Amino acid sequence: MKTLFTEYIYHISGVKNLVYSIQEAIEILSRTPRVLRVLLTGLDPIWLNFRKQDQAFSPLDVVGHLILGEKTDWIPRMKIMLSSEGSKEFPPFDRVGFDKSLSLDVNLKLFEDLRRENIDILRTMVTETDFQRTGIHPEFGEVTLEQHLATWVVHDLTHLFQINQTLAYRYKETVGPWIDYLKILQV
Amino acid sequence: MKTLFTEYIYHISGVKNLVYSIQEAIEILSRTPRVLRVLLTGLDPIWLNFRKQDQAFSPLDVVGHLILGEKTDWIPRMKIMLSSEGSKEFPPFDRVGFDKSLSLDVNLKLFEDLRRENIDILRTMVTETDFQRTGIHPEFGEVTLEQHLATWVVHDLTHLFQINQTLAYRYKETVGPWIDYLKILQV
Repeated sequence: MKTLFTEYIYHISGVKNLVYSIQEAIEILSRTPRVLRVLLTGLDPIWLNFRKQDQAFSPLDVVGHLILGEKTDWIPRMKIMLSSEGSKEFPPFDRVGFDKSLSLDVNLKLFEDLRRENIDILRTMVTETDFQRTGIHPEFGEVTLEQHLATWVVHDLTHLFQINQTLAYRYKETVGPWIDYLKILQV
Repeated sequence: MKTLFTEYIYHISGVKNLVYSIQEAIEILSRTPRVLRVLLTGLDPIWLNFRKQDQAFSPLDVVGHLILGEKTDWIPRMKIMLSSEGSKEFPPFDRVGFDKSLSLDVNLKLFEDLRRENIDILRTMVTETDFQRTGIHPEFGEVTLEQHLATWVVHDLTHLFQINQTLAYRYKETVGPWIDYLKILQV
């Protein structure tokens, strides 16, 4: 892993490219609800409910999971790290405890509203001087606010990837020999 | 690979879920330009021009590559397979031969227009009875129209994944220990 990262560092044009910035993070965070709306609204249920395997998330599930993150993970843990009182330990995050009965439209609206509020909280509560504040992750131990906030961004992107991959899996066999060229079907 | 696929087949609820359909494919194909517009428009150039490595595509490059596919791959090869005359051999596809001087806005508009025209051609020229028509791929040999058309869909999704992954790599180091949970940074 270490070697791979060194190699990757070598290839980029400057270390500035790798620095977390609240403003740049918000560019991604604010787009996710809109990307989900454009990608998922009106899709046939055969796409929306498809799963790679029995226990895997369908595209619909992903939206539910993201809502849970807005409610119980990103901002609540951020507040624990910013607070000068109380325990620094994060409560565990229940990644599947979302309401599976809600429609896509209800979920999308809920996610949009929560995300908008949470971006406002991020923008008003945090500055760069807070980045090295810490909390205690149930598995990793001490983590910094900067790591947590960068993870919020990458977490969005990994779940967009998960949706794209789930959709792609419907045609995993149908593409025939092209599977060799299609990385999304190989990971 | 064979074992993995069998396992996956076992998990899905019905084989119908895996069958290529023109109408369902168009649902994805028609969304891609809109997803790209929502995801990329207005992003800081630091995001738009980021690359995982020297030779990797930036998000901007991906749009150029997709335009090239619309012009020289999906429909031209489809027409070769549908034609009763001429060679069945596909000309090779130059995946990097796109115009790197165009702005994001120009590229997005170009891609939207080409995709709309190409979906119209797909809708009017092809029916299920054509799915087993064949062409000769420069590397794979004989391939079917159904494989080619399914690949068009998965190709969109793999490049959306590529963009998400490229954006995520900016924070590959910054996320700290969370890298273990973020699949997009591991593939």
